[in-house]
Amino acid sequence: MLQSKLFLKTLKETPADADSINASYFVRACFAQKQMSGAYALLPLGFKVYKKIEKIVREEMNALGGQELLMNVLQPKELWVETGRWESAIDIFFKLTDSSKKEMLLAPTHEEQIIDIVRHHIKSYRDLPLALYQIQTKFRNEPRAKSGLLRGIEFVMKDMYSFHASEEDLNVFYEKSKQAYFNVFKRLGLDAKLVAASGGIFSKYSHEFQVLTEVGEDTIYHCDKCDFAVNKEIAEVKEGDNCPDCGGKILVSRGVEVGNIFPLKTKWSAPMNATFTDKDGKEQIFIMGCYGIGLTRSMATIVEVYYDSAKNKMVWPKEVAPFDVHLISLGENTEAEKIYDDLTKKGFDVLFDDRDTSAGEKFAEADLVGAPTRIIISKKSLEQGGVEIADVDGTKIVKISEIDL
Amino acid sequence: MLQSKLFLKTLKETPADADSINASYFVRACFAQKQMSGAYALLPLGFKVYKKIEKIVREEMNALGGQELLMNVLQPKELWVETGRWESAIDIFFKLTDSSKKEMLLAPTHEEQIIDIVRHHIKSYRDLPLALYQIQTKFRNEPRAKSGLLRGIEFVMKDMYSFHASEEDLNVFYEKSKQAYFNVFKRLGLDAKLVAASGGIFSKYSHEFQVLTEVGEDTIYHCDKCDFAVNKEIAEVKEGDNCPDCGGKILVSRGVEVGNIFPLKTKWSAPMNATFTDKDGKEQIFIMGCYGIGLTRSMATIVEVYYDSAKNKMVWPKEVAPFDVHLISLGENTEAEKIYDDLTKKGFDVLFDDRDTSAGEKFAEADLVGAPTRIIISKKSLEQGGVEIADVDGTKIVKISEIDL
Repeated sequence: MLQSKLFLKTLKETPADADSINASYFVRACFAQKQMSGAYALLPLGFKVYKKIEKIVREEMNALGGQELLMNVLQPKELWVETGRWESAIDIFFKLTDSSKKEMLLAPTHEEQIIDIVRHHIKSYRDLPLALYQIQTKFRNEPRAKSGLLRGIEFVMKDMYSFHASEEDLNVFYEKSKQAYFNVFKRLGLDAKLVAASGGIFSKYSHEFQVLTEVGEDTIYHCDKCDFAVNKEIAEVKEGDNCPDCGGKILVSRGVEVGNIFPLKTKWSAPMNATFTDKDGKEQIFIMGCYGIGLTRSMATIVEVYYDSAKNKMVWPKEVAPFDVHLISLGENTEAEKIYDDLTKKGFDVLFDDRDTSAGEKFAEADLVGAPTRIIISKKSLEQGGVEIADVDGTKIVKISEIDL
Repeated sequence: MLQSKLFLKTLKETPADADSINASYFVRACFAQKQMSGAYALLPLGFKVYKKIEKIVREEMNALGGQELLMNVLQPKELWVETGRWESAIDIFFKLTDSSKKEMLLAPTHEEQIIDIVRHHIKSYRDLPLALYQIQTKFRNEPRAKSGLLRGIEFVMKDMYSFHASEEDLNVFYEKSKQAYFNVFKRLGLDAKLVAASGGIFSKYSHEFQVLTEVGEDTIYHCDKCDFAVNKEIAEVKEGDNCPDCGGKILVSRGVEVGNIFPLKTKWSAPMNATFTDKDGKEQIFIMGCYGIGLTRSMATIVEVYYDSAKNKMVWPKEVAPFDVHLISLGENTEAEKIYDDLTKKGFDVLFDDRDTSAGEKFAEADLVGAPTRIIISKKSLEQGGVEIADVDGTKIVKISEIDL
């Protein structure tokens, strides 16, 4: 893409109301615009990153055997009365009425609707296990909206729901889902820790995927040597204790919860009377699990981890970068356009800074765009024998005929 | 995909509340589930078709020079007060308040927010023209929700907004957008007619893209010989008149509006005081156009056009079909699996009916799934020399080694 055509107008100053690295970065770098507290529009650059995250999540959920669908934002009261959630969690719901005064809410989660879909269609153990998921904008009437895209009133989530004929089968799928989640976060460039959390009354534990960064709101006790990690809510250890698994030292950190998995069992399927016929012809309640990933929250977390505040510089992890390569042409030359065409033909997503502006402005904007590889072509680089290629491995001069990314 | 694993449970009977072909088809064929009046969940098969429509729309909008973004569903009152629309169109809005009693609405369209984004970022004629679009779930407090996915309270639209320094430049882009729209509808398998409609006080005309089918709600006067077509609202001809363009005969039809384009000019940018600096250094109001396509409505329209009610049979147009090929194996044989692997490796999206059910049931379900090509392998076909391939061109027996789609 030619930078002269891209919707990209960066800001030199940090927005006055930015309360976190990502809130400041996204607005300064023209990745997002704040519409109101907790609601951001994704501008073209931010949307590009978002779509790459979406692709990774989709691929891993499909590999896990999930089938994608798209449920509704508007939910009728009746469905939520069935589980008792219409009244119990009312404060965090956006409620509204339609033209005939019918009461509805904006879905913050979809257990009710997915159970309604499955109880209408699935009657036999032969059709189990089954995993259905969606990637969708969700809503939460959040009085403490803050931290940019980390805690919003409107955000994108992937929510998957699995249905099983037995707890054993749920357990098998639940363990597989952990690996799928690790795959997702690794591809996003996030080092997510599996943290035991409360399982409610039906299960001993649920699990959270926590990225340990300063902006995180959750307190996690974890071992310095092994994988032991537990959420504060249910922790039976404190800082400095010996790890119950390996004897190492217990540390404390604040985490960002980028995903969670929960063995629901019959928590919602029982009140909704969602049943199937087992192999002995007996009616049984569906055993369920649910599995969430915050897409926009993960995007914000990547910024919290990868943005270098001292250098005012972002470097996006390769798989989610808005562009593979930022090609920066300084001064007049005829080679840059050829390199752009050549790399584009090879399948690279290249942002070509073709504008007639100063080197300083070009580099400052490139620092905000955050492509993992930068190719600079200038009178100086040509005198030195070609172009300058800069990436995480450092900087080198490469002949134009030998550019190999 | 193996049919034994696919979320596909068809219904033999038409749902009692189905008021149109698509409402009946989508539910019977397990493409969608009705959640409440005007709100349908897209089940895995329906979601597959929807994603193919989305891909086509995205490709054509990108080719037109559009840059994709994603705006917000939740809109603050202040923005809509600026254009005067908070009060004027209040009946069709879903309004709600957040936890601090702040008034908001669920966006039915995005002129206000896109103008707000552009007036924050774009200051100079040098950055024009600019076209931004999104594909998003929209909401309309619709008391007459009906006809399945044709008229809902929750639906997916593509909305694009263009910004120009002059009316001449708007006109150039507006004409190009017509061709992009024809490309989209052609790829969707829809024969859309360009129909002149009211342009409001700023423009003589806007334009609608109408598919003439019985379920359509709009009355269109059009010529039997040339491209003349006009919406009833502004028609100065009646049925049987001579066409003012070519002298042909004027016919009357009810249309489904699958898209529209509108030369807004300064209709909303003026009240929002959205300005840029022109090449003479003078402040000017942005000249705008807006361009909509109903994605879920187009999906429903395809069913209205392609579903054969007499035969209870759907055949999806190739580019939007849920699967390229439906491979149906009857009785025991070892060849079907090999054909499935082979076609999948060649890049075809194949649904393989690997279930142990009757031929009658398999064919009835295949008629609902609606893949454009069907390959049947049975004892009979093998005796005749191979497999039976059925598509719009008819049926033929082909040797397994010579299957070539």
